[in-house]
Amino acid sequence: MAAPAAAAPLGSMQSDEDRYFSTNPPPKDLDQHMALVEAFVDKHAKANRRIVLVTSGGTTVPLEKQTVRFIDNFSAGTRGATSAEYFLDDKADYAVIFLHRQFSLQPYSRHYSHATHSFLDFLTEDENGHGVRSRDEDAASMLSVWRRYRAAGDRLLALPFVTITDYLFELRAISRIMHRLGPNGLLYLAAAVSDFFLPPERMAEHKIQSTDINADKSSGKPLGSFAADEDEETFDNFDSSPKVPRSKSLVIDLDPVPKFLKSLVDNWSPESMMISFKLETDPDLLIGKAKGALERYQHHLVIGNILATRKQEVVFVTPQDVNWVRLSEADVAANVEIETLIVPQVISLHEEHIRIYKAKEKTQ
Amino acid sequence: MAAPAAAAPLGSMQSDEDRYFSTNPPPKDLDQHMALVEAFVDKHAKANRRIVLVTSGGTTVPLEKQTVRFIDNFSAGTRGATSAEYFLDDKADYAVIFLHRQFSLQPYSRHYSHATHSFLDFLTEDENGHGVRSRDEDAASMLSVWRRYRAAGDRLLALPFVTITDYLFELRAISRIMHRLGPNGLLYLAAAVSDFFLPPERMAEHKIQSTDINADKSSGKPLGSFAADEDEETFDNFDSSPKVPRSKSLVIDLDPVPKFLKSLVDNWSPESMMISFKLETDPDLLIGKAKGALERYQHHLVIGNILATRKQEVVFVTPQDVNWVRLSEADVAANVEIETLIVPQVISLHEEHIRIYKAKEKTQ
Repeated sequence: MAAPAAAAPLGSMQSDEDRYFSTNPPPKDLDQHMALVEAFVDKHAKANRRIVLVTSGGTTVPLEKQTVRFIDNFSAGTRGATSAEYFLDDKADYAVIFLHRQFSLQPYSRHYSHATHSFLDFLTEDENGHGVRSRDEDAASMLSVWRRYRAAGDRLLALPFVTITDYLFELRAISRIMHRLGPNGLLYLAAAVSDFFLPPERMAEHKIQSTDINADKSSGKPLGSFAADEDEETFDNFDSSPKVPRSKSLVIDLDPVPKFLKSLVDNWSPESMMISFKLETDPDLLIGKAKGALERYQHHLVIGNILATRKQEVVFVTPQDVNWVRLSEADVAANVEIETLIVPQVISLHEEHIRIYKAKEKTQ
Repeated sequence: MAAPAAAAPLGSMQSDEDRYFSTNPPPKDLDQHMALVEAFVDKHAKANRRIVLVTSGGTTVPLEKQTVRFIDNFSAGTRGATSAEYFLDDKADYAVIFLHRQFSLQPYSRHYSHATHSFLDFLTEDENGHGVRSRDEDAASMLSVWRRYRAAGDRLLALPFVTITDYLFELRAISRIMHRLGPNGLLYLAAAVSDFFLPPERMAEHKIQSTDINADKSSGKPLGSFAADEDEETFDNFDSSPKVPRSKSLVIDLDPVPKFLKSLVDNWSPESMMISFKLETDPDLLIGKAKGALERYQHHLVIGNILATRKQEVVFVTPQDVNWVRLSEADVAANVEIETLIVPQVISLHEEHIRIYKAKEKTQ
């Protein structure tokens, strides 16, 4: 009697995670990605180089199997892409696994990809008319970006994801492989991750039609009427007809995503240093929620930020301290990126994490 | 008595549209954008050049005023960005207003921006080490893209939007300016537009917290728990606690977007040729829904496509005909873009639209 009772919490937690990974389809490229990660991790481990997993961009929650509509998290991927560059910097010399939302910002190309000007504006036809070259006024900056991109070379492995499920399968598999690095592994989880998802069995096969709208809401089937174009039922006698009310409800029954941060710390990669990010819009909530996450998951650092000021200041919340990291007004005016302050501080905390781990080893 | 009764439908329709535009905030760049559109339209009208408005990419429906979460429509902007290039082609010589989702694909740069390889992979350091140039193996293709981009020059005006409300304000203002072009204006509405929105008065100011989840659902306030990061309340005693059920509901009361296609045809730009797109995943619904839209809005053409095959075939649905436009297997194998077939057919229909309009003018 005592045994099952004692085992229950762990059992249910396990089965919970297992259920998620057994009922949701893995991304089709998972095996191919993990072959790349295996080779990448082994090569840099041999070179005794530290490896950071940087996650970046928002995860999607598809509302249909053949997805026309989805719920998304705001994130261009600026934090992740910018941080990756500073981890790849010669002085830092980390190897970076960049797990990013497809088409979000990437290290180096980010300087041109989401700019108001197309990168084509920085190029001109070369003298002999055989190709293109950087315009004289942009030559120095483009060459500098290109050289840093080249210098990163095989220290950067970029892997894309789209959905929350893609992300969790990739995160689990990568962190398990990184476990072999011991404390030299760093998890820098900057992606904007949904904590809810729509289970496949409740997903509509096809684009939800407006005609579904007034169906039984207790069914758990997503009901609603987002259209990827103008949808005639939607507007049918819109103004007067009683059969189409002015306001409609979209009801989606969502399941919470398993506690993967807990799984990361306890099971997937327990010796890695783990950093999570917390984005809020209400400053009064930020510190409390960061501390709550630290207590819950027992990881090493939460970097908190407020949506409106995230490019000027962040707060490092550890079990011991709460430290704000801010750009000076002069730095802001000079377009200095706050990641130039964040990444070096993270690296010194990672070095401390390694020292503590090795000291513990000695005493055992 | 008769008068108000007779006036009622129009009145309610008007007030409906008016209510939308008076209760939702215009995009902050609207005035600046319209100054650009005014100058653009007048210049090309003087040159007797036809002008097409190409809309492209998906609109967002923000769930919070300080937006962390939003509902989005699937669209990379491929159809719009690719079509724009063929309208800008020397042979077609249209001027293009490209109203696109911020960071979606753009004409010309699209050949590199969403590719697996960064555009930096196509460049190398130049001989004298002053800048970068196209690699020899990529020089011809990059030069070709760059020259076409340059040739488009001031015939391309790109304007970004993000939300459904941004999109509708921009669409109304641009189409009203294009009205002065008479039948020489073409509206090519390829954007993936949500037909529902969340009114400002029902929008949460801050990121929705998990703790909101079991609040009163009849309030109309969006309730739910999408988090842009791991949210402690969400997982609190997740497995066992009765206060956090395994499955939660997100309830969002959405309002239908006003019938802007009807407004376009009747009021905003009645002499322009108007083309809408219909994306479906279920082939059995496509033709019927396309015909329904044509009957309802009385515009000129619906281009229908199925999500899975949209790059190989589309269907032109007019009041007279249903014509499938398909790439041959050889073309598909050769990566020919279906827009090379779509745009010339659209242009000849636009020429017919102009002929008919002018013939009518004569007879009047």
